[in-house]
Amino acid sequence: MNDIENYLQKHEERFIRDLCEYVRFPSVSAQPHHRKDLTACAEWLLGRCQKIGLEATLCQTAGNPVVLARTPRKKSIRRPHFLLYGHYDVQPPEPFDLWKSPPFEPTVKGRSLFGRGASDNKGQHLAHLNAIEAYLKTGTELPCDITFVIEGEEEVGSTHLAHFLQQHRAALRCEAVVISDTSLLGPKYPALTYALRGICAVEIKLHGPSRDLHSGLFGGSLDNPAMALCQVLAQLRDKNGRVTVPGFYDDVKPLLPSERKELARQPFSERAYQRFLGVPKLFGEKGFIPIEQRSARPTLEINGLTSGYQGEGSKTIIPAWASAKLTMRLVPNQTPNRTRKLVLQHLRKICPPTVRMELHAGHGGEPYFVSPDSEHAQAALRALRKAFGAEPVLMREGGSIPIVNDFKKILKADTLLLGLALPDDNAHSPNEKFDLDMFARGMRMSAHLWQELAAATK
Amino acid sequence: MNDIENYLQKHEERFIRDLCEYVRFPSVSAQPHHRKDLTACAEWLLGRCQKIGLEATLCQTAGNPVVLARTPRKKSIRRPHFLLYGHYDVQPPEPFDLWKSPPFEPTVKGRSLFGRGASDNKGQHLAHLNAIEAYLKTGTELPCDITFVIEGEEEVGSTHLAHFLQQHRAALRCEAVVISDTSLLGPKYPALTYALRGICAVEIKLHGPSRDLHSGLFGGSLDNPAMALCQVLAQLRDKNGRVTVPGFYDDVKPLLPSERKELARQPFSERAYQRFLGVPKLFGEKGFIPIEQRSARPTLEINGLTSGYQGEGSKTIIPAWASAKLTMRLVPNQTPNRTRKLVLQHLRKICPPTVRMELHAGHGGEPYFVSPDSEHAQAALRALRKAFGAEPVLMREGGSIPIVNDFKKILKADTLLLGLALPDDNAHSPNEKFDLDMFARGMRMSAHLWQELAAATK
Repeated sequence: MNDIENYLQKHEERFIRDLCEYVRFPSVSAQPHHRKDLTACAEWLLGRCQKIGLEATLCQTAGNPVVLARTPRKKSIRRPHFLLYGHYDVQPPEPFDLWKSPPFEPTVKGRSLFGRGASDNKGQHLAHLNAIEAYLKTGTELPCDITFVIEGEEEVGSTHLAHFLQQHRAALRCEAVVISDTSLLGPKYPALTYALRGICAVEIKLHGPSRDLHSGLFGGSLDNPAMALCQVLAQLRDKNGRVTVPGFYDDVKPLLPSERKELARQPFSERAYQRFLGVPKLFGEKGFIPIEQRSARPTLEINGLTSGYQGEGSKTIIPAWASAKLTMRLVPNQTPNRTRKLVLQHLRKICPPTVRMELHAGHGGEPYFVSPDSEHAQAALRALRKAFGAEPVLMREGGSIPIVNDFKKILKADTLLLGLALPDDNAHSPNEKFDLDMFARGMRMSAHLWQELAAATK
Repeated sequence: MNDIENYLQKHEERFIRDLCEYVRFPSVSAQPHHRKDLTACAEWLLGRCQKIGLEATLCQTAGNPVVLARTPRKKSIRRPHFLLYGHYDVQPPEPFDLWKSPPFEPTVKGRSLFGRGASDNKGQHLAHLNAIEAYLKTGTELPCDITFVIEGEEEVGSTHLAHFLQQHRAALRCEAVVISDTSLLGPKYPALTYALRGICAVEIKLHGPSRDLHSGLFGGSLDNPAMALCQVLAQLRDKNGRVTVPGFYDDVKPLLPSERKELARQPFSERAYQRFLGVPKLFGEKGFIPIEQRSARPTLEINGLTSGYQGEGSKTIIPAWASAKLTMRLVPNQTPNRTRKLVLQHLRKICPPTVRMELHAGHGGEPYFVSPDSEHAQAALRALRKAFGAEPVLMREGGSIPIVNDFKKILKADTLLLGLALPDDNAHSPNEKFDLDMFARGMRMSAHLWQELAAATK
């Protein structure tokens, strides 16, 4: 490990230059005119992989290519195999005028490297690549086989990744997947994210009269679909912040006292959080702290409301219809299908007979959970401890990362989420940055990780 | 009266030709490029008035001119004076493709004259003008002085009429105002509309987080403004269709049993009405029939709802804000100011502390009521009875006609609403028509009306 440590230290400046080169590619997957930049970016990454001694190929898909790179295999030894997933595509940089330095001209200020994609996700998987470089260049034997899967469509829904995994299923069979694409809480709070919420979407439209009606001539003698919608939706959540759909919480795996204790350990100021959100007062399910409410408890949210006249001034109508978009965030062991069914059933039940209800089921994604007590999770925690010199935090994240379920379904492998982004890294926002200390820590964490993971594999 | 009856009969064909000429002007006040057509239309009307022997002038205003025409005064006799109000401007004809004949090429089919403005309002005030022509051309002495005030901005809110009335207040002082711009219920159901609802508008906006937030990362730990809005609005109306704002009904003058009996006498099929509205089931304040609900009871309606994402598919956000447009319809003796105050007070009271409420008071208009027992109303009913050979219906209308309050305030005169439009005349819609039988009946009603009104004036 000393050799590796020395190597990483010695090449620190060059690693930063490399990252700058990488960030310079405007690999924006959402914008078709950047198609060539994506290919160029993938080719640059391919070159990097080959240069450090990985067997790397560019795999064409129906969309952007996937960079597939593996550590040289030793025929004589059967070693455990791990996958490292990342993505070289980035979010659109707009609005440009809010950037303090151009998004694709990487700029180092102090210990921050500014640029679109610096932390999401180029810097994070490059840290892993640098660790492997240190192994290979110092002639240190790797305790396991590692395959990098770096795709170019994460920011547009990983459209072709599941198909890619199916195609390469045999070669990708592995003990576990590692992803550094989440957050830690601060330099002294490295984190393992062991749970994500799932999601399911529903659209509701209430039809009243066959056309907008004059509210003077007709108002009072028929139901108003906008009012009916408000009265239906208002019944879905109570004063204690509980979703009132019968059966909604039936499948929710309760938080263990030990887990709640762990979550409560996270540094968190309600006052600062309230100010950050910009709300006059926090609100959530009674009996849970905000950290639990936003990550470990299911929700039902209205994402949009539409009815009648929305322009300036007033238009005295009874709208012909009113609609709402809803999403539910799910926690283990809820499923999108069952939750959607419960919500649709309940909506049908409480809809008044004075309007006609139209319901549409939207997309869904399973919640994700990997026990922090598993051998691999414990191994990851040890690597974090060694690299950061601090006790790692066990985190749940409230969002969804659909690919982890693809890894589970297709490769039967659990995913370890070991994020290197700081909460203020501005992912998806102007002035995205990556902290160079986290970059350095990430390389060391990665170096330890493969040792720990291999040792933990029977 | 025989002379007049004969005259009207003899000139029937020509009256229809006149109306066609009048409808041919595209006097659309909402569309600036029709400005010249409005002037040309006013000049045509001025010519008509002068031709039959009225003292007529075109009065310029800051908008479209008003045609002011008066029966020749006799200095020797002091006679009661009545005002007849109408408007020569029309609604926009769009959408053109839904018209079966071009909107400004008047087309007679059977007993219907199709064309924009045929019934709203050209045909209706022309019927009155024809009756006066019959008086003047047959040398029949008029029992009263009559002044026609025909404006060109009714469809855009009568912007300059109040100022005009102020300017000509002395010349326009009168016993009562007559307007034929409402509906009757059918050829056998002539009607006096003796009450109109008032209105007041309120806009409510609930602010949550300072920007749209990721519903995965934050959902559950703060209130959703769209949900808060639904829960606030849902509380404004109960299951019995009653508005739940405290004090809302305090000023409502209860319907007298005799009035309710009269309203219940109107021909009305709940089933046909439901089909006409296109709703699965009627709904309104318990204890009242639909005719009362839509015209004689106050309401609170949501005219529009706006929040968050309204496009295709889903966007998983907690919206930064949610807003609604509300209007209340008022009945005697509610006032817009007091009602608005009650509603705003209540909204402030029930708004949860988890969102910031922004309220805007909108426009307002007083409800209108003229006792059907008054001498003039009784006189009007006698005229209707004579012209239609049927017992007139006493109607309330749910909409608002703001100018009647101007007449009351500025001229201290009550208005008699004696509509000649049939419910299927498509006012404001494609294929507007005027029933030529109603045209003929209207002339006769007008001929009788002046006699009856004069006789009823002490």
